[in-house]
Amino acid sequence: MIFRQLFDTDSSTYTYILVDEVTHKAAIVDSVIHHVDRDLSVLAALNGKLEWILDTHVHADHITGAFELRKKTKAQIALGKAANLSCADRLLDDGDEILIGNIPCKVLSTPGHTNGCTSYYVNNSMIFTGDALLIGGCGRTDFQEGSSEKLFHSIREKIFGLPDSTIVYPAHDYKEKTSTTIGEEKKSNPRLKLSNTKEQFIDIMKNLKLDEPKNMHKAVPANIKCGQIP
Amino acid sequence: MIFRQLFDTDSSTYTYILVDEVTHKAAIVDSVIHHVDRDLSVLAALNGKLEWILDTHVHADHITGAFELRKKTKAQIALGKAANLSCADRLLDDGDEILIGNIPCKVLSTPGHTNGCTSYYVNNSMIFTGDALLIGGCGRTDFQEGSSEKLFHSIREKIFGLPDSTIVYPAHDYKEKTSTTIGEEKKSNPRLKLSNTKEQFIDIMKNLKLDEPKNMHKAVPANIKCGQIP
Repeated sequence: MIFRQLFDTDSSTYTYILVDEVTHKAAIVDSVIHHVDRDLSVLAALNGKLEWILDTHVHADHITGAFELRKKTKAQIALGKAANLSCADRLLDDGDEILIGNIPCKVLSTPGHTNGCTSYYVNNSMIFTGDALLIGGCGRTDFQEGSSEKLFHSIREKIFGLPDSTIVYPAHDYKEKTSTTIGEEKKSNPRLKLSNTKEQFIDIMKNLKLDEPKNMHKAVPANIKCGQIP
Repeated sequence: MIFRQLFDTDSSTYTYILVDEVTHKAAIVDSVIHHVDRDLSVLAALNGKLEWILDTHVHADHITGAFELRKKTKAQIALGKAANLSCADRLLDDGDEILIGNIPCKVLSTPGHTNGCTSYYVNNSMIFTGDALLIGGCGRTDFQEGSSEKLFHSIREKIFGLPDSTIVYPAHDYKEKTSTTIGEEKKSNPRLKLSNTKEQFIDIMKNLKLDEPKNMHKAVPANIKCGQIP
């Protein structure tokens, strides 16, 4: 499997490209609209034929490249069922498994940041957690159907159920890091380490006092149309 | 092997941490002085015991964290022999092999950006190329004993001699990418792809007309002392 991690400085978003070396079939996770040409050129250089455009959720901080990528490649847009987007080609349910060529990709429903948040466990070795589990943090739970209780369950019961060696690739990092592992987050995530109770977590989340994402009013209306700008 | 890629936004520098999971021995490649505490905390979280502080060269754009890291960990500072730094614990020659625990790390002398530029080929699968080969580019050759002719030879004859699937991790990227492969650079690096001649490369490099790195006058005097601020 060929793997690439790409960054969007404006929104600190990571986009991931995965290519099966045998079939050349490829997937992109959490694309950003103004990087569609860059991403297609990376895919071309890797001989990747885009089959899956996976989003982890309806983002509030940037517009997804999904709609534009589908227009240019005919690949399928897929995301979590609970996101309930009629523009998607496939709505994925907890426990579903899709194939990126021969690479297995298991779908984990991980609500809490939004109701439709989905994580993708790929090749039994890496997980794309979107805005559920971040490196030493997690997604906020104070808008878009956010629920600290659900997020705690998604991370502690589902994501943390994977092997400790699993590499975690989040949708964002704001502190110049690129990845983490389940084992490390269990031990040292200030919000979600195993020694924290659910009540402690809910309390931490309640007191974050975050500003609204600056591009929310542009991003959400576009993203509920899979990135088609209204 | 546990692998981490970290970023310094100020100078667009990538720092890499490698930990052998069996022995817990660890190496850091191209650290940045103001991230020493971050890097030590990542090492601690990974149960890594720092043995090697590897620099690819005497950087001109940021101060290495080598001196501070050695002070705090007693690890050895190593870099290329031609860098000729008396502050280093080990000067590495082309063809040398060191061990990060049980992980093999082969030393390739890759001059051209500077005379002492060294690349590290780790675990027969990834290479840390410093400012020799970058993603779709290469280091400048217009100061610090730079030589386009030498750089062409280092990349085309030495680095490109590794398997196409080798993952390339450079010291910098300015375009939101994190890695590439030898195969991809052979095919599509605008300066160094196989269809370019040495004369074309030298001509490209001659016409770059770059500004001097903004921190050069602070970085170089410190870096020839392995990052000890004079």
